[in-house]
Amino acid sequence: MQLYDFKMAPNARRVRVFIAEKGLDIPSVEVDLGSRAQLAGDYGKVNPMLEVPALALDDGTVLTESTAICRYLEEVYPDPPLCGRNPLERAVVMMWDRRVEQHGFMAVSEAFRNGNAFFKDRAVTGPMDFAQIPELAERGKQRFANFLGFMEQRLGEAEFVAGERYSIADMTAMVAIDFARVIRARIGDDQPNLQRWHAAVSGRPSAQV
Amino acid sequence: MQLYDFKMAPNARRVRVFIAEKGLDIPSVEVDLGSRAQLAGDYGKVNPMLEVPALALDDGTVLTESTAICRYLEEVYPDPPLCGRNPLERAVVMMWDRRVEQHGFMAVSEAFRNGNAFFKDRAVTGPMDFAQIPELAERGKQRFANFLGFMEQRLGEAEFVAGERYSIADMTAMVAIDFARVIRARIGDDQPNLQRWHAAVSGRPSAQV
Repeated sequence: MQLYDFKMAPNARRVRVFIAEKGLDIPSVEVDLGSRAQLAGDYGKVNPMLEVPALALDDGTVLTESTAICRYLEEVYPDPPLCGRNPLERAVVMMWDRRVEQHGFMAVSEAFRNGNAFFKDRAVTGPMDFAQIPELAERGKQRFANFLGFMEQRLGEAEFVAGERYSIADMTAMVAIDFARVIRARIGDDQPNLQRWHAAVSGRPSAQV
Repeated sequence: MQLYDFKMAPNARRVRVFIAEKGLDIPSVEVDLGSRAQLAGDYGKVNPMLEVPALALDDGTVLTESTAICRYLEEVYPDPPLCGRNPLERAVVMMWDRRVEQHGFMAVSEAFRNGNAFFKDRAVTGPMDFAQIPELAERGKQRFANFLGFMEQRLGEAEFVAGERYSIADMTAMVAIDFARVIRARIGDDQPNLQRWHAAVSGRPSAQV
């Protein structure tokens, strides 16, 4: 296997954290999105969506989409379980992972890509150029603030995002929240449950990737 | 089990098609989003995100997020397999389902919710109000047109979206494309592969839901 990676890309970090939690050692190559290497070179043959991460398997199949890559690794390397231990747990973990992704991860991405000068005319990932929409950057910031409030409530009810066990949903939430420094958003001093949870997940060795 | 449903909601249709393909008979209640019943009543106790569909299980757990509901049903009722038959197939199906969702389904939703008068100040699902962004409606239409082009190419290479077998990725694509009538977008006369595929998936009894 080989991972197509980019250190600063949050979706790539999701997969790196997952790989670290599994204790796997997968060789990787860096696709330098900072210099737009995905647009200029042959990367379109790896992933026509021009996004990282991508995981090339030994049979030549290339998997893209962070969640699909993680679920594949979960099935092939089941220990430790990070996506739930039975059908019900897996569904609950997937539900929370999706909620975090839609309302947290996407909100930061919208705010960043529509508000930062680096993404002028590149507001959407992929082969096509799209102009930035400043109002969408503002909306993303508001949605992310709402997401933090929702998570603060959730983490007052449960130790981890999807319940009593650490899971992929915690990784997605940690990566989204850490990435939110790019839009100058952070957990509030008045959000003790989020603070407690963030200290716990960030203290795991996997958070260093 | 009980499904919280709304006839006109595309995410609800995804789950209804999936249930029909499995040959299941799950009782449902209609949440009338047309009169904003999700905002006024007790539906927040079922799903705090105020979205349909939701699946209440017999033990009291409520599952939300269409893909999480479908993957749960796939695990509990494995025949016929609709999400792949082994780890690699499941990953490839999930990858294609995500691509369709991000680039097709989301594009239509963005265009519709930001462009239709019914969604004034309700441009995002959930408990919070957000103003519409007309530029985002336009961008959604462009992204959807690009998506159709991408699918036309894909369906020139493979019989179904995720490969040689009908899967959940075909359901997501069919629902997105059928729903795109609300933004007056449709498969072009110059897209024969999409036409062929759409006729095939629409001819299945499950498409009638």
